[in-house]
Amino acid sequence: MENQFPEEKFSEQYRNIPVSFVRSILNAIGQQKMISFAGGLPNPSLFPVDELAESTRAVMADAGRNILQYAGSLGYYPLREWIASRYSAKYGMKITPEMVVITNGSQQAIDILSKLFINPGDGVILEKPSYLGAIQSMSAYLPNFKEVDLLEDGADLAQVEDLFLNDEIKLMYAVTNAQNPSGISYSDEKRQDLALLLRRYNQFLLEDDPYNEICFGEEFPAPVKKYAPDHVAWTGSFSKMVAPGLRNGWVILPPALVPHFDKAKQAADLHSNNLTQYVLHHYLTHNDLDEHLSRTRTKYEEQAACMVDMLNRYLPDDVKVTQPTGGMFIWLTLPDGLRADELIKSTMERGVIFVPGNSFYTKGQGSNHIRLNFTNADPDEIEKGVQIIAEEMKKVLCAV
Amino acid sequence: MENQFPEEKFSEQYRNIPVSFVRSILNAIGQQKMISFAGGLPNPSLFPVDELAESTRAVMADAGRNILQYAGSLGYYPLREWIASRYSAKYGMKITPEMVVITNGSQQAIDILSKLFINPGDGVILEKPSYLGAIQSMSAYLPNFKEVDLLEDGADLAQVEDLFLNDEIKLMYAVTNAQNPSGISYSDEKRQDLALLLRRYNQFLLEDDPYNEICFGEEFPAPVKKYAPDHVAWTGSFSKMVAPGLRNGWVILPPALVPHFDKAKQAADLHSNNLTQYVLHHYLTHNDLDEHLSRTRTKYEEQAACMVDMLNRYLPDDVKVTQPTGGMFIWLTLPDGLRADELIKSTMERGVIFVPGNSFYTKGQGSNHIRLNFTNADPDEIEKGVQIIAEEMKKVLCAV
Repeated sequence: MENQFPEEKFSEQYRNIPVSFVRSILNAIGQQKMISFAGGLPNPSLFPVDELAESTRAVMADAGRNILQYAGSLGYYPLREWIASRYSAKYGMKITPEMVVITNGSQQAIDILSKLFINPGDGVILEKPSYLGAIQSMSAYLPNFKEVDLLEDGADLAQVEDLFLNDEIKLMYAVTNAQNPSGISYSDEKRQDLALLLRRYNQFLLEDDPYNEICFGEEFPAPVKKYAPDHVAWTGSFSKMVAPGLRNGWVILPPALVPHFDKAKQAADLHSNNLTQYVLHHYLTHNDLDEHLSRTRTKYEEQAACMVDMLNRYLPDDVKVTQPTGGMFIWLTLPDGLRADELIKSTMERGVIFVPGNSFYTKGQGSNHIRLNFTNADPDEIEKGVQIIAEEMKKVLCAV
Repeated sequence: MENQFPEEKFSEQYRNIPVSFVRSILNAIGQQKMISFAGGLPNPSLFPVDELAESTRAVMADAGRNILQYAGSLGYYPLREWIASRYSAKYGMKITPEMVVITNGSQQAIDILSKLFINPGDGVILEKPSYLGAIQSMSAYLPNFKEVDLLEDGADLAQVEDLFLNDEIKLMYAVTNAQNPSGISYSDEKRQDLALLLRRYNQFLLEDDPYNEICFGEEFPAPVKKYAPDHVAWTGSFSKMVAPGLRNGWVILPPALVPHFDKAKQAADLHSNNLTQYVLHHYLTHNDLDEHLSRTRTKYEEQAACMVDMLNRYLPDDVKVTQPTGGMFIWLTLPDGLRADELIKSTMERGVIFVPGNSFYTKGQGSNHIRLNFTNADPDEIEKGVQIIAEEMKKVLCAV
């Protein structure tokens, strides 16, 4: 057991978790300074640092001793109330605080729901491409992933219905707003149609929605959850809305599922951090969140527009570029002859990284795609980085 | 899917998690005021509220923007350094910060290590009785629990060796200091002998040690980890040492295991709360922790002594009472004719709750035991609660 831990000691479930390509890249480059379009970091200039510092001071002064004690595994009730009330009002839904459970980011909600539902071999529907973190989290429960195409307005529902009809499906996972990595948002119609399918076939959807508040232009339509409340677990996150380091997200569940989620959450880590739940609640009730969100959207929209401009200016014409409707990512489709997992080797040498599409598929596809993050680079870096990617693409295409 | 969630939707792993008796009790009593010896809550009067409030202010002022961003899944490096340095010095061990991973309490370390190691049906050795939270967490990975007797000086090693020799064992779980629920601590000799067995049979121990700093009288001996560093994952927790609401614990791993733990931790919740890691590090490096621990130990030792006194004064003579060496619990062994799971029904009606021993066994045993928590009740409550328990015991014994 010296330098390598003996592989045969590990469980099959652990061995099934795919390695994160991003992580391998980051390990490879070590401390080198890079232009990174790879991660999914919010822009730290937007964090309401002073306001959160004041909220932190206030809650520790008011309720320090309560904050420091063990607490219930469902989360801080007033924060659950705030979430229930905001999203009930936003979408005309009937969400009670009792349906809301606080988690460590929405990532933990994915992990716990996977633990609740997935037996080894169970069919789990994913969009193609899908969020890497969800693929990793769910893989630990040995599912049989079934990928459906992601069209301009959301998942291909004919394929979904075919799977519901002809396969053993336990769960569907979808990011309905500004999907990571594709940037695609479901149309209103598609949300309602998917809800209909869930109810007709008594199927369950994990509707992962971390980018709900990061829309460009008009608000996103109401979630699938609205139209099939008993068939959807709908997650949300403060990571993109306020700040990720606080590690607080939530999930809104059918009431009958709450005690089960609660038991599994308890087994995982007893309960989520108390201090940051109080801090968030204080921040949200003492500041103008919508003004903060408006600043965030404007900034990200500018960054996205800048990156799209540069991509249109420099990239070969036959590279397809998505126009993001929100979120943090732009998705490229490469022409024949270009492979993202090859391309990154040469851009990395020139100090630019991104995530090759392969990471977002479960069957080895995706090397004709690139995910670019635009929230954490300034216009100069965006231009320089895009230029380098474009040059390296052209080298390959000319050599073909 | 209205009021009951359809059971057949759930995974086998989830259905294998035992219900927490404590939770059922708490649900049953609702908001009624009770004398509770049931939970495992630290005494909130000991929380260093002002110091932590000051640390919170200081780190938000110093490093707010960093704290609020995503961070590495292994934890805040200076906090990992502090842990490595304290326990290297305390026990003459060679712990580097790279071996330390921060988790959401030590509970999450148990969950993630279980995910890493346990295939369905794998043999996992537990002490008899064992910590309920670990039983719940590990049960979700469908192990085949093998219980060994817990003697006055730790697990029965003849039974352990027999299992290592004749069974398929993947993992052993033990709480070596002031065990929850029994209060038993391993002798120095037994720690070294167990280490020898682990190395001889190339077996792996999860040494769970949340009560390390809560000893009465002299310090606990060095952990098993010292004598078999590559065969032990050793957890620790700030919950009992500083405050549980911050939800920060850690695990010290063989170096070769760290990248694997890291990958599984990432899939679970990306990383632990940043703010409280900074706060703890600031608190620990700007205050006299040992003075704080000394106050905590004195207080708990007084509370334990008070409860032991009352138990000796009021209980029937043939109830065996452990003398705790630290931690938070006293363990009772009942004579024939008394069943803890029956007794609690009558004490509950009179406003007193505790945890019947059944919760700490995996094969339905333990109804002849009671776990009493002494850290969260004042002397008057302790006397009144013990009197009521004693009266109810005598009623049953006289009726026999």
